[in-house]
Amino acid sequence: MQAQTLHEEASPEVQARIRASFERQGLMGHLGAQLSHIGPGRVHITLPHRPEVSQQHGYIHAGATSTIADSAGGYAAFTLFPENSSVLTVEFKINLLAPAAGDSLEAVGTVLKFGRTLTVCQLEVFALRDQAKTLVATGQQTLICLHERPER
Amino acid sequence: MQAQTLHEEASPEVQARIRASFERQGLMGHLGAQLSHIGPGRVHITLPHRPEVSQQHGYIHAGATSTIADSAGGYAAFTLFPENSSVLTVEFKINLLAPAAGDSLEAVGTVLKFGRTLTVCQLEVFALRDQAKTLVATGQQTLICLHERPER
Amino acid sequence: MQAQTLHEEASPEVQARIRASFERQGLMGHLGAQLSHIGPGRVHITLPHRPEVSQQHGYIHAGATSTIADSAGGYAAFTLFPENSSVLTVEFKINLLAPAAGDSLEAVGTVLKFGRTLTVCQLEVFALRDQAKTLVATGQQTLICLHERPER
Amino acid sequence: MQAQTLHEEASPEVQARIRASFERQGLMGHLGAQLSHIGPGRVHITLPHRPEVSQQHGYIHAGATSTIADSAGGYAAFTLFPENSSVLTVEFKINLLAPAAGDSLEAVGTVLKFGRTLTVCQLEVFALRDQAKTLVATGQQTLICLHERPER
Repeated sequence: MQAQTLHEEASPEVQARIRASFERQGLMGHLGAQLSHIGPGRVHITLPHRPEVSQQHGYIHAGATSTIADSAGGYAAFTLFPENSSVLTVEFKINLLAPAAGDSLEAVGTVLKFGRTLTVCQLEVFALRDQAKTLVATGQQTLICLHERPER
Repeated sequence: MQAQTLHEEASPEVQARIRASFERQGLMGHLGAQLSHIGPGRVHITLPHRPEVSQQHGYIHAGATSTIADSAGGYAAFTLFPENSSVLTVEFKINLLAPAAGDSLEAVGTVLKFGRTLTVCQLEVFALRDQAKTLVATGQQTLICLHERPER
Repeated sequence: MQAQTLHEEASPEVQARIRASFERQGLMGHLGAQLSHIGPGRVHITLPHRPEVSQQHGYIHAGATSTIADSAGGYAAFTLFPENSSVLTVEFKINLLAPAAGDSLEAVGTVLKFGRTLTVCQLEVFALRDQAKTLVATGQQTLICLHERPER
Repeated sequence: MQAQTLHEEASPEVQARIRASFERQGLMGHLGAQLSHIGPGRVHITLPHRPEVSQQHGYIHAGATSTIADSAGGYAAFTLFPENSSVLTVEFKINLLAPAAGDSLEAVGTVLKFGRTLTVCQLEVFALRDQAKTLVATGQQTLICLHERPER
């Protein structure tokens, strides 16, 4: 996947499938998260900093950081899955590297290894403030493709 | 920590410190999560199942599951930390074992190894429906104690 | 699996299958590791402390600790797999809690959640010295069952 | 660290410190592992494929793969640590992506985030056969710096 152009877009069909699924995730809307890029094997999700997503020191909560990272990785894998399939997270691991301060977070999920059953993604989360972009979390995720199990 | 009585309660001072911190976590209130037990080295957090915390199939989102697991582990460690300290999650890993269906989730954070700098917790999340309790996620978390850095 | 008697033994057929596989693992013999218990969903592997498995401070190397933990978990899963199947580690995560000092290590792999495709194990490693037993590492592992792919 | 030239070498003092520590790791010699590159924040370790490091199907054992990944990450961090310090692995997580077939493995540890107390590394392991190089494992590791605790 490394060779893809950074801003290459997925096909309209794939984009529509991802957007429809994202809109069914009540948690994404409740947190205020938005899909900001859908490429083949790569998805970005953006989360504005609001009190509703904070932890006790006022930074964005590690749980919110992890949530958008998990969704970005899940959808990055889903862009490569066949029609009539579903995606589930098997497991993920995330290191919180720096306080999630800033105006918003951007989670980037990238497929490292695609497989018929299992797919592995890299997860990165950046804090954005003015022009600066800081890596605040990095992780790794395993996903499973459920064949012939369309989302709806 | 294994030897503690299952429902042993932390001291009133520790309970007050945990509750005050929890109330400052905007994300916990926004998700509808509640502290349901504070013992020495063990904390439970409960999350009712609502559309606002769902993923695309209607189950509770892996991100919400992870969020309450992360907070339960963080506060379990915090019950053992000295006054005037803060707790931060260094990293965690979580396996999603079964769909998070049911009326609510209960996350249980338990200290496995307490240290002056680093503490390691076990994370478990159960789905509750009527009388049944199903393990839906299990994880492991590393936390750091920031000495002489009170939360406020 | 929690309900099993601690020292319950697997059936002779399962024990034979596990021992045959273990003997084909060149690394186990090279490290000096031995199968010390084979129960249904639980396997113990013991590793004597020798200079050949040490790190730079003289303790047992985290890699050796992880190796026997990985094998103990893999075989714990394999005790529950059908005949004519193979087991592969998908991923594991391990926390090193204390220096691996002592006369030997004992790794314990226990199935937390068995599934047709994926199985999740808990990994624990204890250091043994005289009568004392200290938890030195704890981890979590995901394994995949390859059906109709016998080991030989 | 991303900006470093791929083959930039660490200073002679740092290289000597890493090599001296590596030689004290009995396990590295016993497995036949060798330091193949020492750059600032990046270390490579190579492991020839021999029966002594195999698993039951003849591939290199996940434990051996993990061992050289763990050491590569540990030494990558150690290149950045001050004199009179030691390095210990806090935890690591690794995904095994493909069978570790080939003539040898190359583990690459790269510092993602350096800190005074904790450092986070990316771990990658490649299988080498003739001219081909395949990513067989990818991981993430947390290390702690013990200040004023020289290795000897």
